[in-house]
Amino acid sequence: MSFLDLLLGKPLANWEERGERIGPAAGIPIFGLDALSSAAYGPEAALTLLIPLGAMGIAYIVPISAAIIILLTIVYFSYRQTIDAYPGGGGSYTVARENIGTGAGLLAAAALLIDYVLTAAVGISAGVGALVSAVPSLLPHTLAMCLGILLLITIVNLRGVKEAGGVFMIPTGLFVGTLLITILIGVLKALAAHGQPMPIVEPPPLPAASALVGAWLILKAFASGCTALTGVEAVSNGVRAFREPTAENAKKTLTVIIGLLIILLAGIAWLVKAYHIAATDPGSPGYQSVLSMLVAAVAGKGVFYYVTIGSILLVLALSANTAFADLPRLCRIIAIDGYLPRSLANRGRRLVYSEGIIVLAVLTGALLILFGGVTDRLIPLYAVGAFLAFTLSQLGMVFHWKRTGGAHALRNMLVNGLGGLVTGITVLVVLVAKFIDGAWITMLLIPGILLLMYAVHRHYGRVSQEVADSTPLNLTHFQPAMVVVPLERWSAVTKKALTLALSISPDVIGLHVDCEWTEQLKKEWQEFVEKPVQEIGLSAPRLVVLQSPYRYVTSPIVDYVLKLQKKDPERQLAVLIPELVERHWYYYFLHNQRAAVLKTLLYVRGSQKIAVVNVPWYIE
Amino acid sequence: MSFLDLLLGKPLANWEERGERIGPAAGIPIFGLDALSSAAYGPEAALTLLIPLGAMGIAYIVPISAAIIILLTIVYFSYRQTIDAYPGGGGSYTVARENIGTGAGLLAAAALLIDYVLTAAVGISAGVGALVSAVPSLLPHTLAMCLGILLLITIVNLRGVKEAGGVFMIPTGLFVGTLLITILIGVLKALAAHGQPMPIVEPPPLPAASALVGAWLILKAFASGCTALTGVEAVSNGVRAFREPTAENAKKTLTVIIGLLIILLAGIAWLVKAYHIAATDPGSPGYQSVLSMLVAAVAGKGVFYYVTIGSILLVLALSANTAFADLPRLCRIIAIDGYLPRSLANRGRRLVYSEGIIVLAVLTGALLILFGGVTDRLIPLYAVGAFLAFTLSQLGMVFHWKRTGGAHALRNMLVNGLGGLVTGITVLVVLVAKFIDGAWITMLLIPGILLLMYAVHRHYGRVSQEVADSTPLNLTHFQPAMVVVPLERWSAVTKKALTLALSISPDVIGLHVDCEWTEQLKKEWQEFVEKPVQEIGLSAPRLVVLQSPYRYVTSPIVDYVLKLQKKDPERQLAVLIPELVERHWYYYFLHNQRAAVLKTLLYVRGSQKIAVVNVPWYIE
Repeated sequence: MSFLDLLLGKPLANWEERGERIGPAAGIPIFGLDALSSAAYGPEAALTLLIPLGAMGIAYIVPISAAIIILLTIVYFSYRQTIDAYPGGGGSYTVARENIGTGAGLLAAAALLIDYVLTAAVGISAGVGALVSAVPSLLPHTLAMCLGILLLITIVNLRGVKEAGGVFMIPTGLFVGTLLITILIGVLKALAAHGQPMPIVEPPPLPAASALVGAWLILKAFASGCTALTGVEAVSNGVRAFREPTAENAKKTLTVIIGLLIILLAGIAWLVKAYHIAATDPGSPGYQSVLSMLVAAVAGKGVFYYVTIGSILLVLALSANTAFADLPRLCRIIAIDGYLPRSLANRGRRLVYSEGIIVLAVLTGALLILFGGVTDRLIPLYAVGAFLAFTLSQLGMVFHWKRTGGAHALRNMLVNGLGGLVTGITVLVVLVAKFIDGAWITMLLIPGILLLMYAVHRHYGRVSQEVADSTPLNLTHFQPAMVVVPLERWSAVTKKALTLALSISPDVIGLHVDCEWTEQLKKEWQEFVEKPVQEIGLSAPRLVVLQSPYRYVTSPIVDYVLKLQKKDPERQLAVLIPELVERHWYYYFLHNQRAAVLKTLLYVRGSQKIAVVNVPWYIE
Repeated sequence: MSFLDLLLGKPLANWEERGERIGPAAGIPIFGLDALSSAAYGPEAALTLLIPLGAMGIAYIVPISAAIIILLTIVYFSYRQTIDAYPGGGGSYTVARENIGTGAGLLAAAALLIDYVLTAAVGISAGVGALVSAVPSLLPHTLAMCLGILLLITIVNLRGVKEAGGVFMIPTGLFVGTLLITILIGVLKALAAHGQPMPIVEPPPLPAASALVGAWLILKAFASGCTALTGVEAVSNGVRAFREPTAENAKKTLTVIIGLLIILLAGIAWLVKAYHIAATDPGSPGYQSVLSMLVAAVAGKGVFYYVTIGSILLVLALSANTAFADLPRLCRIIAIDGYLPRSLANRGRRLVYSEGIIVLAVLTGALLILFGGVTDRLIPLYAVGAFLAFTLSQLGMVFHWKRTGGAHALRNMLVNGLGGLVTGITVLVVLVAKFIDGAWITMLLIPGILLLMYAVHRHYGRVSQEVADSTPLNLTHFQPAMVVVPLERWSAVTKKALTLALSISPDVIGLHVDCEWTEQLKKEWQEFVEKPVQEIGLSAPRLVVLQSPYRYVTSPIVDYVLKLQKKDPERQLAVLIPELVERHWYYYFLHNQRAAVLKTLLYVRGSQKIAVVNVPWYIE
């Protein structure tokens, strides 16, 4: 069993594809981690903006959460319809492209690509950040832990879809379970105490109000809370990963994810108000997350508290997995259409799109390293992308129903239209509220990616036009190639190359760069080459000696070959490069790597009419 | 002008070699920095060990320095004789190898190689360390500064010998000049004050004695002070770098270096005693270097003080240059003898042995990174290597005089014999005194390097035996090669490759891995290949379709080729690989790099009878 097999699992054959498909149970951790984990930071993000309102701010969390939940419900129904309409995987890209146009599709794709990379980086660093704030002694290892988790997620995903579902099921269950229990206990206690429950661990005192309520502040809090909606797109993108009936299974998964998310968001908002918990300033030394205060207030700081907080950290870190499940699928569809490198559509050994996974891992790793594992500053950059994609997808669905018609066309158009309208407004709100904080970067990146995708498409078009051919071989002007053999001194390696050269063509030139063995080689050439060749009646090959005052060996050879080519541009040239090949890599340093350099130079500077022939000599 | 030209200078032709040779003025900074800079740390190293003796310790620095100076003088005369006897570059390696035997030569070489790498790393980090202790805010940038200096020294050396002499002349002059002025002023003041001069800046009070004088302590102090002798070998190794009369110029350079070093060592020792300056503990917060206290006591803390200290830091950091000047030359000689990779003997664009410079830079960089730029712990490792090489070289010279005889043979033998004896004793002293501190690591490394050098030599021997041949071409069984062309679909690229294939041999096989285009390709093969080939009367090439359930494309092809080879082991095979070549590197990602993978796999798994032919198609 090779190391790769051990690390990534045995290769799966094409016919094993069906067995790799998943049901809703596995679908929830694979596609839902991003959405579900947002229960941990969405309400907190909104509450943080409400800090200046003091006690008053807490009251506003309920209507803000209600608005977010309504938005979520609308988006949910829209995406159910999308899944039905596009059981082959209906991400925003496909829907927008097919119904609005290529430009809209690519716009949605660019927005989503940015969003996924950010999700992965921010998710991992948020989880690690929370852990570090709990165990400060881990601080120096922040980046190392981030990269470790990234590596883990990458490997798990490379091992295949099923594997990812299995590995992430336990933390997801723990996260959802403990939070649901917390909410249940909290709600029961609050109801029993007529809305005024006694916290077991008293949350910190409410901050004094330092600002008045204003529409702008509430809008900003809403926009921040909307980060809870990223990740909802995931299921509709990954429909193909589900087993038959795919659309039904995908819808079930989406229903469970959204249902759980709504319960969590509603419960948290309600309890935060009941227990009078305000967010604390993330910059201040007394910082504690809202959920930490909530769980402590409801259940005390016992074992349950630590299990809950632990599972939150884990799920935050693993929420990056949604990006790993979805971005490669998205890249595949775009690649098939020729707007991204084609190899992104190749299935790897475990039937997943390995190259997309690796690209995502590299980009995420780069972001993590660039920001030293602390990616707070990236948070304002996302949500814009997700909501832009939502809007385009909903808009596309409206056109879809208009085009296809059907029994419920009008109702469906209304649902998707409402979804599009609401998410469209949200894009504007988020963009305006977070423009200065960094949303402008997203606005700059999106056109950049669009340009890149168009450039890739244009290039593919040009290449396929250039190599397109549907004419038979033309064998009328059939001339043997001119063969050039560079050689240093007479040896078994040289001899083998010359024998091959003479079998290819009667026109052979030996090419030698002047050195201490030149005189000897000239004599050997006469005796060992010219004589036997003339004996069998062929014309003797020439030996050309090149001067090289700058001690370069390879460039004079390349120059000579290019000159030969220019002299007779129609003639096919073959350069035979005799080469010692070592069976062990560590011998590599012991031989002049001139053959390798020569090959590279000829490859880079060569032309259509120059073929390079490697004649390896294996040392036993 | 290309970037490389700008960075490293225009290539120099072989005939420009004479112009690159140096005189004594340039020789001093190039070969002398290591030796001269040791005036800055040698006395300090001895004094640090004398700290426990308190005021008494200072008295001992004079006899210890005297012993070191006597040793230096003996070594000096020995090396003068070596230069005369080996004007072609008489390092310890050459002298020991020619006069004692290959084993002794390689032993000296291994010891010197270790010593040079350590010198480079320790020199740079000592300079940076001194700077950091002066400007503590630079502390976080220690490693970055070390690597920056390493890069500078590397580039300067790659630019050629002359360049290095020019660049390093100013700091060397400044260092020697300011220290000589300090000594002159100090000695004059001390004489005027009848040996009891008043320091301008009072040195810290002498530490209380905490140990009694013992032979062991004095011996250890002497051994530590002996680090001042490393770097003396450099000139004799680099004789070839000097202009005519080479031996005379080299000897002049050596004389100046050793003369200056002796004056510096003697002056420092005498003044340290006169001004009652004891070393301070390098670990303690009040640490100050001996030279810093001395200059402040003699000249006060004015501009002169800062210029002197600055030039000391600079020269310490640049002392690494001696290693860069010498190690590549040493490697070249060993490589010519076949005990190190041959390419170490190639002259680069500026007539220096670029590969040795780069190897040294990489090793030094690795050490610096490994130790985070603080290499104090490496100090005990060196000196052993240098003294071992000295001893072997002196011993070799004794044999040399015995063998060659001549007028002054007996006198010469005595000089070198005395040198060998004294340095031999010093090796033992250093080894015993520093064994636990790390000299044992050197003792383990030396045999390791020896084994490596012997292995390299054996490998070269085996290879040259294997490829040796002095028989003419054998053209009696002359059979055209079997040509295999892997192809995916019909295109201009495929067509070109097949045309070339048919020009090489009448036996052509098209190899195709089953995919969505297979059916179409089969039809095209009949029409576009079989028909025209049969029309000109040749037998039609076969199209072989391979199945690949695991979606691998390259390995089925390689497997098929290896199978073909096994079936007919005597037949020469040529695999033609059609390949798209992009003119810009950034298009690289847009095409399946299958051709590259296929080439690599065939290269690694192939055999003597498989030649790989690249048929590039350049996209315009």
